[in-house]
Amino acid sequence: MNVDGKPYRTIWLEDLPAEGVPVVRIINQLALPFRFEILDLRTLEDIRRAIKDMYVRGAGLIGAAAGYGMYLAAREAGDRDFDRDMERAATILKDTRPTASNLAWAVDRVLAAAGVGAGGDLSRGTGAAEERRAAARREAQAIADGDAEFCRRIGLHGLPLIQALAEKKRGPVNILTHCNAGWLAFVDYGSALAPVYAAHDRGIPLHVWVDETRPRNQGAGLTAWELGRHGVSHDLIPDNAGGHLALRGMVDMVITGADRVSRRGDAANKIGTYLKALAARENGVPFYVALPSSTFDFSIRDGAAEIPIEERNPDEVRFVTGLAESGDLQRVRICPETTPARNWGFDVTPARYITALITDRGICGASEGEILGLYPEHKV
Amino acid sequence: MNVDGKPYRTIWLEDLPAEGVPVVRIINQLALPFRFEILDLRTLEDIRRAIKDMYVRGAGLIGAAAGYGMYLAAREAGDRDFDRDMERAATILKDTRPTASNLAWAVDRVLAAAGVGAGGDLSRGTGAAEERRAAARREAQAIADGDAEFCRRIGLHGLPLIQALAEKKRGPVNILTHCNAGWLAFVDYGSALAPVYAAHDRGIPLHVWVDETRPRNQGAGLTAWELGRHGVSHDLIPDNAGGHLALRGMVDMVITGADRVSRRGDAANKIGTYLKALAARENGVPFYVALPSSTFDFSIRDGAAEIPIEERNPDEVRFVTGLAESGDLQRVRICPETTPARNWGFDVTPARYITALITDRGICGASEGEILGLYPEHKV
Repeated sequence: MNVDGKPYRTIWLEDLPAEGVPVVRIINQLALPFRFEILDLRTLEDIRRAIKDMYVRGAGLIGAAAGYGMYLAAREAGDRDFDRDMERAATILKDTRPTASNLAWAVDRVLAAAGVGAGGDLSRGTGAAEERRAAARREAQAIADGDAEFCRRIGLHGLPLIQALAEKKRGPVNILTHCNAGWLAFVDYGSALAPVYAAHDRGIPLHVWVDETRPRNQGAGLTAWELGRHGVSHDLIPDNAGGHLALRGMVDMVITGADRVSRRGDAANKIGTYLKALAARENGVPFYVALPSSTFDFSIRDGAAEIPIEERNPDEVRFVTGLAESGDLQRVRICPETTPARNWGFDVTPARYITALITDRGICGASEGEILGLYPEHKV
Repeated sequence: MNVDGKPYRTIWLEDLPAEGVPVVRIINQLALPFRFEILDLRTLEDIRRAIKDMYVRGAGLIGAAAGYGMYLAAREAGDRDFDRDMERAATILKDTRPTASNLAWAVDRVLAAAGVGAGGDLSRGTGAAEERRAAARREAQAIADGDAEFCRRIGLHGLPLIQALAEKKRGPVNILTHCNAGWLAFVDYGSALAPVYAAHDRGIPLHVWVDETRPRNQGAGLTAWELGRHGVSHDLIPDNAGGHLALRGMVDMVITGADRVSRRGDAANKIGTYLKALAARENGVPFYVALPSSTFDFSIRDGAAEIPIEERNPDEVRFVTGLAESGDLQRVRICPETTPARNWGFDVTPARYITALITDRGICGASEGEILGLYPEHKV
């Protein structure tokens, strides 16, 4: 999407003509929203640190970064010990964020494309290793392009929903979103925000209510930033405000992303999503969850019972980080020193509150039957 | 309630024997939760500043402070110009927080007790003025004592609700509250927290989930402080967590305060209260609103339509204030510099989501019939 008029992805590969070497470029998400900064990653170690220390974050983006990391690893791997070096690189990358399922998936895709573990002719001779490096590069690029393409399709499938609302009312369509499921979490477009960008780029008048998303404020820091830079009208609101807005008729639809969706359509997403689903249902506001196909977990049926909810460091609740007047990042404590806190990362919105799921394959109701209609290969 | 074992009110009158003068003492709420500090107020001007600059806040406490302020004004008033001086003091105090209805009510009570505006004999002679000062003092004290007593009764009426839950389960009763409706908002006991303190002081095992209450964090700063100092088990949580907790059976009841309650029981309270009411109802958790009689507005029936919702400075959303590692209070920005924000102070929870109202006169359902059963004088 655009940053002040110039199109960007969150990660891309460039060949530097002067130096004759490839470089992976990323938007440094640790500096957002206070500084827009492009970082050059040149080695496997650079990529490892970027993932581990969250210079890049978000399921789709982590996968793309890992794919490019495996290509840089292929460049570093010896001709002779190519397989061994690549397998070591795979372990190093998978260890950075063990629960990120896209990461392992991307690493394994590049391993397979480069013929690692397959044995046979590919590992013999310099020419062969060069060919395997080229295959790794093509696969890494395909992973990044695929992520962007999946998100672009989510946008196209979600677009008519916004269009239909726009035709029924005067003034902008008011869309509420929670957390960051925008292009910053993927390679481009995003999941929840993909339909928003698709509609905005076609001139449909809309306005986004951005939940700040305590405790980590991804709404205030990332969603507000990317909407602002792309030129989409929006307002930041406390997480507490969505009920009031829905009751007063100031929300036309809610769209959120998801971290995991069960085969019957229960959606785990950032803590607080469920409260917005309740407010939407009570007030007749449609509630959509947008997700790439890879977010489904077809092994789980009852999301509320079966999806484990990570409990995180309570200091994320007790402290808030932001920009002080001095221009420095500062962490401030908002409660007494001895106050204990609890910090669950996600909640599960049961399928019955979800109007529909917006996927890269199309839109479907949040029920096992409708989901398997789009994903027949998961019928048992 | 107690601060580390020693009982306090939020405001009280003391006669200093050495100096032979009365002094109004307050807990400085601007310093909480980071410093516990008692301030001495000796003049009308001290009281005016304490109310205006929010050293004291909360409906009940503002009323008590205004009452004491009128007593200090009576001491400063000339024998000859007593009426004129008192009327000027009344205007000064009422101008500090024009929308605080308890403030004007308390000021008028002291004016009446001191015979201001009544004409007649009371204004003649030094003896008479001294008598009127004594009357002002008695009335100010009665206002403060009355506020505490109303809250104590709310506690006694709410206590059996907690007791009943305690008898039905093993382990502590989990009570969720939003914002600060504790003793810091009144002279003592509080509204929502009065039943909590009553139960805790009788040894009933309980635990409070404290919503941090963005954007001003009264839960994190005040509720967590007062529960901690009194020794009540609690955990601070983001406002986003209550839905997850209710869904998982980790909330036995919700109790909040209210800013205004309509004659049929719709309750305006801090923004976000409505979302907790939705989560409670969906999951079979009782949702109570605790309030002193003075919080009813019998002139309003449909709260959602008729109660005006104040919109506050968006910078309360864009910035968070807390204690930096240096030990100084710091304000940090959590969003891009150009991000716009909206900031409604309250929402209205329609009566149908409220299990019952806990008042100083007893418990009643949130319906016009049941409310007027307790308040027959407001039947039309």
